[in-house]
Amino acid sequence: MLSVMRLALEEAMQAGARGEIPVGAVVTDAAGRVVAAAGNEVEQRQDPTAHAEMLVLRMAAQSLGNRRLEDCTLTVTLEPCAMCAQAAAHARIGRIVFGAYDPKSGGVEHGARIFRLAQTHHKAEIIGGLNERECADLLQGFFLERR
Amino acid sequence: MLSVMRLALEEAMQAGARGEIPVGAVVTDAAGRVVAAAGNEVEQRQDPTAHAEMLVLRMAAQSLGNRRLEDCTLTVTLEPCAMCAQAAAHARIGRIVFGAYDPKSGGVEHGARIFRLAQTHHKAEIIGGLNERECADLLQGFFLERR
Repeated sequence: MLSVMRLALEEAMQAGARGEIPVGAVVTDAAGRVVAAAGNEVEQRQDPTAHAEMLVLRMAAQSLGNRRLEDCTLTVTLEPCAMCAQAAAHARIGRIVFGAYDPKSGGVEHGARIFRLAQTHHKAEIIGGLNERECADLLQGFFLERR
Repeated sequence: MLSVMRLALEEAMQAGARGEIPVGAVVTDAAGRVVAAAGNEVEQRQDPTAHAEMLVLRMAAQSLGNRRLEDCTLTVTLEPCAMCAQAAAHARIGRIVFGAYDPKSGGVEHGARIFRLAQTHHKAEIIGGLNERECADLLQGFFLERR
């Protein structure tokens, strides 16, 4: 799990180097194989939906030829927002592993709390705070530099 | 506003004819010009994120060369889910007009209620229930046929 987060962190760092908010995400299959990896591309694409999680969910579904990712894990450096959390629920993702918590924009443990809504019948396994410090430091460093 | 909903309904009907859940969406600019129009493409693309709203938000941002759609209106035949509502919030959409209410999966007036969260600083104007009957009948007809 840590080596997958390491890959997500590398994607996040590459995104930061491109001037994007440094968030990276990976989808792995049941055997732990990497199916998709990407960093945030909102600025580059001028696409408000191009969060790292959305990109890897789409890439994984394409790659597996199946819009349902029940046996897959989404690993991401930051708590997903409501858009990404709901997208993962639509994909019936098996598990979500994230690094830093995001009280400001997170939609898993904060705000919309997508997987705790009575509406959300799909219940993913949620693991938050993996490599939390490193994931948070990366974001904080990025915003400090931009001030 | 009604003629734009008429276009969204046409997109919804075309989506239904392709075997998709019949939902259609349109983005118009401040002058009321159509910037993007699409129906649901989840099945066709095997993409769990390919809701009509996501497609038109992306198309509109590309077309306008700007990921912020502050002066734009998103018109959609069904209340957007949390994914689409949050995507519209990320895009800072000016207004959302929708047809049928969706207690089961809606994220604007139900469930996550994205625009009522303290987290959501962007406040879009929301108009629900336009052509509600026709939008709802289209969906109901689709699901009745499939039983």
